[in-house]
Amino acid sequence: MTQTLVPASMDTAPRGAYFSFREPLAFRGEGFVPTAEEPFAYRFYDKNRLVLGRRMEDQLRFAACYWHSFVGDGTDPFGDASFLRPWHGAGDPMAQALHKADVAFDLFRLIGTPFFTFHDRDVAPEGATLRESNERLRRIEAVFERKMDQTGVKLLWGTANLFSNRRYMAGAATNPDPDVFAYAAAQVKNVLEMTHRLGGHNYVLWGGREGYETLLNTDLKRELAQLGRFLNLVVEHKHKIGFKGQILIEPKPAEPTKHQYDHDVATVYGFLKANGLETEVKLNLEQNHALLAGHNFEHEIALASALGIFGSIDMNRGDEMLGWDTDQFPNNLPQVALTLYEVLKAGGIGQGGLNFDAKLRRQSIDPDDLVWAHASAMDLCARALLVAEKMVQDGALQRHVQTRYQGWDSPRGRAILQGECSLETLARDVEAEGLEPQPRSSQQERLEHLVNGYI
Amino acid sequence: MTQTLVPASMDTAPRGAYFSFREPLAFRGEGFVPTAEEPFAYRFYDKNRLVLGRRMEDQLRFAACYWHSFVGDGTDPFGDASFLRPWHGAGDPMAQALHKADVAFDLFRLIGTPFFTFHDRDVAPEGATLRESNERLRRIEAVFERKMDQTGVKLLWGTANLFSNRRYMAGAATNPDPDVFAYAAAQVKNVLEMTHRLGGHNYVLWGGREGYETLLNTDLKRELAQLGRFLNLVVEHKHKIGFKGQILIEPKPAEPTKHQYDHDVATVYGFLKANGLETEVKLNLEQNHALLAGHNFEHEIALASALGIFGSIDMNRGDEMLGWDTDQFPNNLPQVALTLYEVLKAGGIGQGGLNFDAKLRRQSIDPDDLVWAHASAMDLCARALLVAEKMVQDGALQRHVQTRYQGWDSPRGRAILQGECSLETLARDVEAEGLEPQPRSSQQERLEHLVNGYI
Amino acid sequence: MTQTLVPASMDTAPRGAYFSFREPLAFRGEGFVPTAEEPFAYRFYDKNRLVLGRRMEDQLRFAACYWHSFVGDGTDPFGDASFLRPWHGAGDPMAQALHKADVAFDLFRLIGTPFFTFHDRDVAPEGATLRESNERLRRIEAVFERKMDQTGVKLLWGTANLFSNRRYMAGAATNPDPDVFAYAAAQVKNVLEMTHRLGGHNYVLWGGREGYETLLNTDLKRELAQLGRFLNLVVEHKHKIGFKGQILIEPKPAEPTKHQYDHDVATVYGFLKANGLETEVKLNLEQNHALLAGHNFEHEIALASALGIFGSIDMNRGDEMLGWDTDQFPNNLPQVALTLYEVLKAGGIGQGGLNFDAKLRRQSIDPDDLVWAHASAMDLCARALLVAEKMVQDGALQRHVQTRYQGWDSPRGRAILQGECSLETLARDVEAEGLEPQPRSSQQERLEHLVNGYI
Amino acid sequence: MTQTLVPASMDTAPRGAYFSFREPLAFRGEGFVPTAEEPFAYRFYDKNRLVLGRRMEDQLRFAACYWHSFVGDGTDPFGDASFLRPWHGAGDPMAQALHKADVAFDLFRLIGTPFFTFHDRDVAPEGATLRESNERLRRIEAVFERKMDQTGVKLLWGTANLFSNRRYMAGAATNPDPDVFAYAAAQVKNVLEMTHRLGGHNYVLWGGREGYETLLNTDLKRELAQLGRFLNLVVEHKHKIGFKGQILIEPKPAEPTKHQYDHDVATVYGFLKANGLETEVKLNLEQNHALLAGHNFEHEIALASALGIFGSIDMNRGDEMLGWDTDQFPNNLPQVALTLYEVLKAGGIGQGGLNFDAKLRRQSIDPDDLVWAHASAMDLCARALLVAEKMVQDGALQRHVQTRYQGWDSPRGRAILQGECSLETLARDVEAEGLEPQPRSSQQERLEHLVNGYI
Repeated sequence: MTQTLVPASMDTAPRGAYFSFREPLAFRGEGFVPTAEEPFAYRFYDKNRLVLGRRMEDQLRFAACYWHSFVGDGTDPFGDASFLRPWHGAGDPMAQALHKADVAFDLFRLIGTPFFTFHDRDVAPEGATLRESNERLRRIEAVFERKMDQTGVKLLWGTANLFSNRRYMAGAATNPDPDVFAYAAAQVKNVLEMTHRLGGHNYVLWGGREGYETLLNTDLKRELAQLGRFLNLVVEHKHKIGFKGQILIEPKPAEPTKHQYDHDVATVYGFLKANGLETEVKLNLEQNHALLAGHNFEHEIALASALGIFGSIDMNRGDEMLGWDTDQFPNNLPQVALTLYEVLKAGGIGQGGLNFDAKLRRQSIDPDDLVWAHASAMDLCARALLVAEKMVQDGALQRHVQTRYQGWDSPRGRAILQGECSLETLARDVEAEGLEPQPRSSQQERLEHLVNGYI
Repeated sequence: MTQTLVPASMDTAPRGAYFSFREPLAFRGEGFVPTAEEPFAYRFYDKNRLVLGRRMEDQLRFAACYWHSFVGDGTDPFGDASFLRPWHGAGDPMAQALHKADVAFDLFRLIGTPFFTFHDRDVAPEGATLRESNERLRRIEAVFERKMDQTGVKLLWGTANLFSNRRYMAGAATNPDPDVFAYAAAQVKNVLEMTHRLGGHNYVLWGGREGYETLLNTDLKRELAQLGRFLNLVVEHKHKIGFKGQILIEPKPAEPTKHQYDHDVATVYGFLKANGLETEVKLNLEQNHALLAGHNFEHEIALASALGIFGSIDMNRGDEMLGWDTDQFPNNLPQVALTLYEVLKAGGIGQGGLNFDAKLRRQSIDPDDLVWAHASAMDLCARALLVAEKMVQDGALQRHVQTRYQGWDSPRGRAILQGECSLETLARDVEAEGLEPQPRSSQQERLEHLVNGYI
Repeated sequence: MTQTLVPASMDTAPRGAYFSFREPLAFRGEGFVPTAEEPFAYRFYDKNRLVLGRRMEDQLRFAACYWHSFVGDGTDPFGDASFLRPWHGAGDPMAQALHKADVAFDLFRLIGTPFFTFHDRDVAPEGATLRESNERLRRIEAVFERKMDQTGVKLLWGTANLFSNRRYMAGAATNPDPDVFAYAAAQVKNVLEMTHRLGGHNYVLWGGREGYETLLNTDLKRELAQLGRFLNLVVEHKHKIGFKGQILIEPKPAEPTKHQYDHDVATVYGFLKANGLETEVKLNLEQNHALLAGHNFEHEIALASALGIFGSIDMNRGDEMLGWDTDQFPNNLPQVALTLYEVLKAGGIGQGGLNFDAKLRRQSIDPDDLVWAHASAMDLCARALLVAEKMVQDGALQRHVQTRYQGWDSPRGRAILQGECSLETLARDVEAEGLEPQPRSSQQERLEHLVNGYI
Repeated sequence: MTQTLVPASMDTAPRGAYFSFREPLAFRGEGFVPTAEEPFAYRFYDKNRLVLGRRMEDQLRFAACYWHSFVGDGTDPFGDASFLRPWHGAGDPMAQALHKADVAFDLFRLIGTPFFTFHDRDVAPEGATLRESNERLRRIEAVFERKMDQTGVKLLWGTANLFSNRRYMAGAATNPDPDVFAYAAAQVKNVLEMTHRLGGHNYVLWGGREGYETLLNTDLKRELAQLGRFLNLVVEHKHKIGFKGQILIEPKPAEPTKHQYDHDVATVYGFLKANGLETEVKLNLEQNHALLAGHNFEHEIALASALGIFGSIDMNRGDEMLGWDTDQFPNNLPQVALTLYEVLKAGGIGQGGLNFDAKLRRQSIDPDDLVWAHASAMDLCARALLVAEKMVQDGALQRHVQTRYQGWDSPRGRAILQGECSLETLARDVEAEGLEPQPRSSQQERLEHLVNGYI
């Protein structure tokens, strides 16, 4: 049971002094020792250090997200708000939105994240009509333009919230009511254009309501057709307005919906192929969503890369012991290193980035917890990147894989792949040669040991 | 730990008298009361009863499988063989294979299942070379021909075992060694042709080893290309020999492999699209595999149907509390009824069938347990079919769904689906009309109640 | 992300006419056919029918719960309120609480549930201080007394909400701050006494915050000691005030907390033993919580019964494909029948009851959905009870079990259980007798068939 | 389906030269660089290095297990043997057992593990009668005595295999047939005495068959009583023969059985309490089993420690994406460090040890893979121990926890815990003081950052 009233006794901190940190966090190197004056400094995140030929900042392209850190209030399915951000209390909603923006950009400045991300409803309150909502959003856009200018922080991606409002309870694009489809289309148009004007590098679609609860009331085939149509509209509009960013779909198998259509990488790929969009749309991948779909994060990245649709990353982690999206900040060095190794193998993060779609635990109610969580995660990722760099530079893993498959460079291997064999010719060869292939050790344990040597 | 020696004290029952049942099980109707003379009779499985215009037997197209019932010996990862079938003991392997065939066809006769299914290695022992294996298989084929003739039992599908032998430990089509690919191709050619000669209605590919254990030693992209090539060879050969049956892929996400490429319906669909095979290949679906992939069985059937690739069914059930393939006989009436309702909505089972890819629990060591398990499952499915028939005939569910989506027949709905709208025109309409769509109850609980009314 | 503001445009239905149903639902028997005038009637729930010697109403002891049906607003982790109950809107909180109570008792009247259940915060709004909260609760108590008198509806159990308010974010009894322990104690005292005055049959403790998020900040041993102390205080107070109801703990492994101390039946039993409370406290079991802990519901009931701590039931169901508490209304006949069979084997529900701790799906936004969901579930349970009655009366299952273990009535069996053997004497016997026990079929498939015969 | 025949073409390596490694692996320090001559050396496992006052070898007490490494043949539920160890082939079973023992002790020598562990059936083949089995075991025992003497390798624990043979298919102690109980008792007596004679430090009971498949054929209460009796017999015999080692139960929730009685730490604790054995029996914990029960490994260790029943560890890891026991060698540094931190907090490993109940992946078919896997795991654990040492020495985590709970040292905190308060006095205090406790941040993200600082 959830009770959701905002408590009366709202703490209203003075504007602009939400965090005890005043100056941007510095890079001090591995030997850094915390002091009372400087409780945190980056030990690994040296943004200008070259890693495989690119500045670390450009390899990682960190983004902080608006929703978890500034909209989220610490509620959970059985608990009321715990964070009590001043801008969550009563008051003029636009004034609160501006207060929120001040604190958000102050956080970006302190941690030095080069990008941010947002949903429309995160940054400006919904109005009584879509027109009013759009007007409010436009006012915030002007604020963002100024702040982005002042701070140099850029927009990794924008997106439209097509899931919170009850009008979307049965889906946005996949709603049984075409008016909802139209409403969603109008909302996406607005945010896509705003993202374009703000110089966003990508635009994301997360289909948290594009799915179903029970087949008893669902026409799955029809809904898939609606979803395909919607995606085509978005791509068409992107080209029309000249947006050069990537259109990204973010797969997730379930939650809030029982079954979501954008289940995982493989599912979305099939959907894109069926709609002829596999060269137009890429994917924004998240470890927690991968877990919920029964995959390792590395698998999802490698598969998206193999299919040519790898786009960007949500850099959080899930809890394997829990069956829902915990969206925790990453903290396991070897896991993140293997993740970034796959990103590097995929050619790097490209136009995408590492977005901290991660939220503080409900009990982390100090404003400074926001700073600690982001900065710790950035430093952990930087450290992991240095490990992944070693894996690439050393090359032993890559060589092992190449050696393992080298038989495919033999005449038979080539002939098979080039379509020069049939079951018949192969069967004839096997019998004629008395072929009895001998298995070779795959050496998994040695390779795992090799990986630990890079840490 | 598994110890797998066949116990010395093998019980060798006289041939042809493996079961205490002597006569085929009869249909006696719902009022049947078991007696000592007739402990079991069908209460619902009346094969000639018309259900939605087809004989029940033709709607259900039951098949018994060779592997679980005649090859499986009751071992589990921590336990030795418990079943001690006479034909599992020491002795001439071909004599044992013949003994096994006698008992298998005796079971088919007793339970009255119109079809059976097999892997090559289930029915004939592997020889020292592929040539010898093929010769042995050919001898069994002759036996099958005769027995099928005598009993009228038909072949639902055949398949090649490309997973048990250690040569396939790193995959068959996806092996790093092209010689293994060639060996697998030769094996499939042989079984595909045998299936063709025996009048099989389908040929199945289950890729239990087509996947990987760790990306550290795997080139995922290359393996997908190999797998695509293999599947094309199979389809080409099918056409070459004039086989009219369906080629079916059986999705499963994992087990034995950590990650298998044929993960679920959506994944295989994308794979087929990528290889241009979506009109050539269909799917054989299993509830237990669906569960392991995080899906309901109904979802997998409905999705395959929507994508035009629904082919056949493995009719077992998994245990939601356990994380591996338990392959139990189906026993939950409402679940099976909803499954068959989806099959009927998909246009029926077509050339496919309901194959009992189900195994006795390790402690069900009586020969008669084989009879009880299959016959109980057949009767349960028949009963569920009658429930599903009511659901179709009454039509209330279908009407509810049609009503729910009827807005899509409005001018706006049609215009959207026919590509006559853009984000721009839709946004303009929303603003102009001040559109604020109102949600409607999806009535899930009422629909679930409606379903129970059919039981 | 959750946005939780109550929408401005609150629909305010006229008081007392929240449902389209006006008269209590009638029992019409299996042949009932719905009409426009009477869309629902009970087909199986005939409250006065004798089932194994007790009235059906007394065997089932249904309760409707306050929280899901009257407090829950349809929010989910990604969605705002969808239900828009009139009493959720702005307005005097006590007036809203009274409105809510009117509708609640109207529902109880319509569906004919003999019991209800509540948390303190469900029925009266929290005040600025505990004193004010208690005063508000006292006012509602007076209303309840009158309504219970008028309708005959009784209180199955009351409980204190020790989880929603942020003061409990780190636990109630297990909080690092003893002041929170004291606050929780004060709250429980108040609700326990209220439950006593209202003639409640049980008092429940659900420890949704009694657990931890990470061991890094947790002293598990200390928290267990706190929890033991708290439970002792509750039991002492129960005796002091002469409350004759059962004190019940409701196990759940996780959610909202990562790890909760009252994990499952076995865990709570050990905790009770460690605190000497195993004869003072019993359990309130829920299927969805059992699933989350990796158990079947039947297991939890049978184990609690074997350990002498079976108390009551939350009668909902979870979704095996989802990893969180879905709290759906029960709808699977065989599953519920097996559940009630275990309840009957445990001696019946006793002082407990079947509480519908179940919530409407978020899209079931019609007021009448509340009626349909509860009434459908009651009828399903009644039908399942009749199946379970057959299982008991026929006795075949019970006889099978007794026969299976009859060896334990042999001299050796008795000697072992009575402590008259040692490893030494048993080893000597085995060698002397050359004992080689032969396994017997456990006949699982036949037994499952037998169960289906009762349906 | 499993086919389990041992292939005919068994590779028979010359005795005593099974591995390419000839000399025990050396410790070379962190700077070690592999060469062709010395492909592996320990970089962290310096057995004589003092860690928190004890030699590293004594803190870790590594053991290699017999079953996975020398009995396991690489079969999986869908695959035949892949390892083809020479001693798995045809031949005199006792000669093969001696060959196996030679290779096993050669491995212990090479990797320098101070302990080993075994089941009776791992080391000597089962005979036609228990008497013959015992005689064979006695012959191997003599061999072990000599080899242990020569090498200094000690026995961490022995155990009886009460699960592989079909006689145990329905349980050992919990079998419906008391003769099976007797047989199991005789087997345990023999192995317990053998363990005692060999100077074993512990004796383990793993109840892989002590559980059930379905309640339909199970008397759960009766089986729990049988299990309690059995455990008492073992404890009584331990005292009778003067065995000073620990009796350990190894919890696991399922697999092979659907539900196992020794589910997890909390369950076994309750069982021990119910049987008055909580001071006689301790636990052997495994990470993979913890995962299957829905727990972190750290939780199980911390809980066992809090309950006073922590005994020993199986040092493997599971795969969170798979639902069965994968028993992989540990490889995640932060995870193992947190595990060992809990072990240190529990007072160290005591009489227990870190047993590698871990198996090679099925494709790791080189003999040397056994060396690599064990040695890599040992070095990883040593490295993790050094991290855990820092966590203990620095003390920051411990101080944080102490500070967090310091309120419990206040007068109210003490009074509560000492039983000097009641619900009444606490409620009075809360009202009188107008107590409104304020939550404090639990700082989870900062603490996770702190942990990464130690790595």
